[in-house]
Amino acid sequence: MAKSARVEETLSYIEQHRSRFEEEWSELLRLPSVSADPAYEKDVHAAAEWLLEKFKRIGLEAEFLPHERHPIVFAESPRIPGAPTVLVYGHYDVQPPDPLDQWITPPFEPTRRNGNMYARGATDDKGQMLTQVFSTEAWLATGQSLPINVKYLIEGEEEVGSEHLDAAVEKFRDRLACDCVVISDTCQFAPGQPAITYGLRGIAYYELQVTGPNQDLHSGSFGGAVANPAWVVMRLLADLADDQGRITIPGFYDDVEPLRDEERAQFQNLGFDDRQFCEQLGVPDVHGEAGYTTLERRWARPSYDVNGMWGGYQGEGAKTVIPATAGAKFSFRLVPHQDPTKITVALREHLEKQCPPGVRLELREWHGAPGFVLPLDSPYMSAAKRAIAHGFDKEPVLIREGGSIPVVTTLCETLGADALLLGWGLHDDNPHSPNEKFSLHDFYRGIRTSAVLWREMASGNSA
Amino acid sequence: MAKSARVEETLSYIEQHRSRFEEEWSELLRLPSVSADPAYEKDVHAAAEWLLEKFKRIGLEAEFLPHERHPIVFAESPRIPGAPTVLVYGHYDVQPPDPLDQWITPPFEPTRRNGNMYARGATDDKGQMLTQVFSTEAWLATGQSLPINVKYLIEGEEEVGSEHLDAAVEKFRDRLACDCVVISDTCQFAPGQPAITYGLRGIAYYELQVTGPNQDLHSGSFGGAVANPAWVVMRLLADLADDQGRITIPGFYDDVEPLRDEERAQFQNLGFDDRQFCEQLGVPDVHGEAGYTTLERRWARPSYDVNGMWGGYQGEGAKTVIPATAGAKFSFRLVPHQDPTKITVALREHLEKQCPPGVRLELREWHGAPGFVLPLDSPYMSAAKRAIAHGFDKEPVLIREGGSIPVVTTLCETLGADALLLGWGLHDDNPHSPNEKFSLHDFYRGIRTSAVLWREMASGNSA
Repeated sequence: MAKSARVEETLSYIEQHRSRFEEEWSELLRLPSVSADPAYEKDVHAAAEWLLEKFKRIGLEAEFLPHERHPIVFAESPRIPGAPTVLVYGHYDVQPPDPLDQWITPPFEPTRRNGNMYARGATDDKGQMLTQVFSTEAWLATGQSLPINVKYLIEGEEEVGSEHLDAAVEKFRDRLACDCVVISDTCQFAPGQPAITYGLRGIAYYELQVTGPNQDLHSGSFGGAVANPAWVVMRLLADLADDQGRITIPGFYDDVEPLRDEERAQFQNLGFDDRQFCEQLGVPDVHGEAGYTTLERRWARPSYDVNGMWGGYQGEGAKTVIPATAGAKFSFRLVPHQDPTKITVALREHLEKQCPPGVRLELREWHGAPGFVLPLDSPYMSAAKRAIAHGFDKEPVLIREGGSIPVVTTLCETLGADALLLGWGLHDDNPHSPNEKFSLHDFYRGIRTSAVLWREMASGNSA
Repeated sequence: MAKSARVEETLSYIEQHRSRFEEEWSELLRLPSVSADPAYEKDVHAAAEWLLEKFKRIGLEAEFLPHERHPIVFAESPRIPGAPTVLVYGHYDVQPPDPLDQWITPPFEPTRRNGNMYARGATDDKGQMLTQVFSTEAWLATGQSLPINVKYLIEGEEEVGSEHLDAAVEKFRDRLACDCVVISDTCQFAPGQPAITYGLRGIAYYELQVTGPNQDLHSGSFGGAVANPAWVVMRLLADLADDQGRITIPGFYDDVEPLRDEERAQFQNLGFDDRQFCEQLGVPDVHGEAGYTTLERRWARPSYDVNGMWGGYQGEGAKTVIPATAGAKFSFRLVPHQDPTKITVALREHLEKQCPPGVRLELREWHGAPGFVLPLDSPYMSAAKRAIAHGFDKEPVLIREGGSIPVVTTLCETLGADALLLGWGLHDDNPHSPNEKFSLHDFYRGIRTSAVLWREMASGNSA
């Protein structure tokens, strides 16, 4: 009864401060914290500073953890002995905004439209991450102590592979110590159908550069006599998948655990509609590995994508040139037990073997992370189900996700902690595309769910 | 005896006016007449104006022929009844200068270095074309009448496929009427080894655009479930050639005439050195159609090249995206009897058949032109041999070339004329690459050869 009264007060505070929450969220969205591009270095830092100040304002101890490149913001609530400790992980960096000409309103001028907030980072991850901050503010600002200990680890390199985070987590493992990691960087299953994500795919991301002649050549005078680097990139990367959507690198599937029948049935029960999916994306048909459904392909099977390619003349008209060099970025999504390091070795060997004579190839590994599946029977999982049912007024479904949050494995393994992936986003939020958005309704459902979650995790643990 | 005296006077004028020739050549090179890029429209026009004025200054009647896009400059010498008529064809437009960062000196600031003139268009075709203008100036400026009638047709759309020229030649066939077309847009066989080019390859140039989803997608959430447009471009274009360098479009080789044994032997006798060729280009090895030598591959066999490709993220770092669309420019070099129109039909059918479901493809044809071989027994061919022997102090060899000068077929067929391809360039002149150059020595050998050619064509015809 006392507990209910307290959470009601917290929830009421949330309702009363909506416009200020949106203002603060917009402040953070206006900072173009693009971690991939060195030109935005200052803005990335400004976003970290903004967060640091925010944590301090709501009554947490906050500081930057000494770090290689972009600051890690660390914060913690006043210590409550005996209560469980949650570590909220999030990131304040964002994807590059291009292609800029496809944005309806500019990416770093947050705009409310049709019940959504539009901006780069609106959902991924500034908006979602802030729901876990405003919930804590609501507890503390109403003069209450939090039901649990909350720590925050908000980094600025997630969109470039979190390459320095593993070392930082190892170095600061004592300060980061927790019972459960909470991350809001995933999606609902469908609008209004909340979900708990218990599995993520891993990733192995590469860049291939193929170089032939010492300069661009006239394709008339030289065509047919030298290997064409652009064609070689195409040949090598086209052949990494066959017409059945299977990846052709020898040994690639060795460690892939076959999908269990129960899980296939569970996916089937979610009633996913291929036709609707195609309509939403504007594609004539789905396309992927033979023998699997769309959800299986997206969540639980490895995949291969070309993420970018370049070479030769890209301007208007016709230029008759053999480019001296050409390249591409490409990546694999991995499933649990596949090791990105092992994949890199197999890929390199395969490409070198397939590469025709007459060119030199250079393979660069951008980042790699394994996939994982969380246990479904922890008390925190039950607490999350109750919190979501309260915040969304609907029971969550259990799903997996195709994306990667490489740090989850690091945090769970290094800190010996459980994890909860509680996402308030929607699949059409365009987190890596133009016109990224986050529903205002879901933003508030997220804050409320988080506020209730702190209480449920306390009681769940003591139950 | 009289004739010799006259040509000596002409040649002496050429020696005396070297520095002014170089200045005028530089003036024209400073005009960035890039026909492929609409941003340079004014500069293309300025180059045409420059030429028009030049022709008038040396005593020719000159005007612009009414034309679709970039002006055609037409000029003719005072009529000498009974003498043969030569039509000099050339072009004042140039290739785009990118990649700009690879130029040692800026492309439109002509610079003399190591005995060469460096600039975009230095050889292709401003420098070579001007040799045929300065030679006429030298005859007229010494108070002599020309031994023959000379007309000029200098266009501004050669580097974008001369798409309006066929119609113009047809329309102005009476004014263009001639006995022989002379073109200087080819190369010597080797430095100091002049050549007459009696065959050129044709071309068929295309752009492919593949479109999938209505916007870029997150490769984690969607990877494996939709066709990736960048990968589809790679799949389709990689498969247009096999590992033996053979083009795979059904029917592509149907009209290809097999190389005759005599011609293979003639190529063999030129003593082409693969090792030296590779060293010059900086490639580890040659690469091309199995069963043919490098010269055969370059001059007399069809070839296939990817000229440009683009799609997805090309910036620094890693962006996990499935691009909504991707594309490429690619072209085939054709040999005599292959019909570009027939190739387009076969290509389109092939690509549509090979295209996986889940994407839409769009094929654009940029330009097409057939290849050809000239007869070796004409009196003009003999005249050209004598003129070159005089101008270069060395007998020319007979060669073919891999590039395309689409207009040659049009001119010969429409005007019922013979043709001479007399090139003073070198293979490392980089006509379509950064640091394009033309040897000053060859520039003057070209002017002298041209001056002697006018006389030899007159006597050759009357012989």
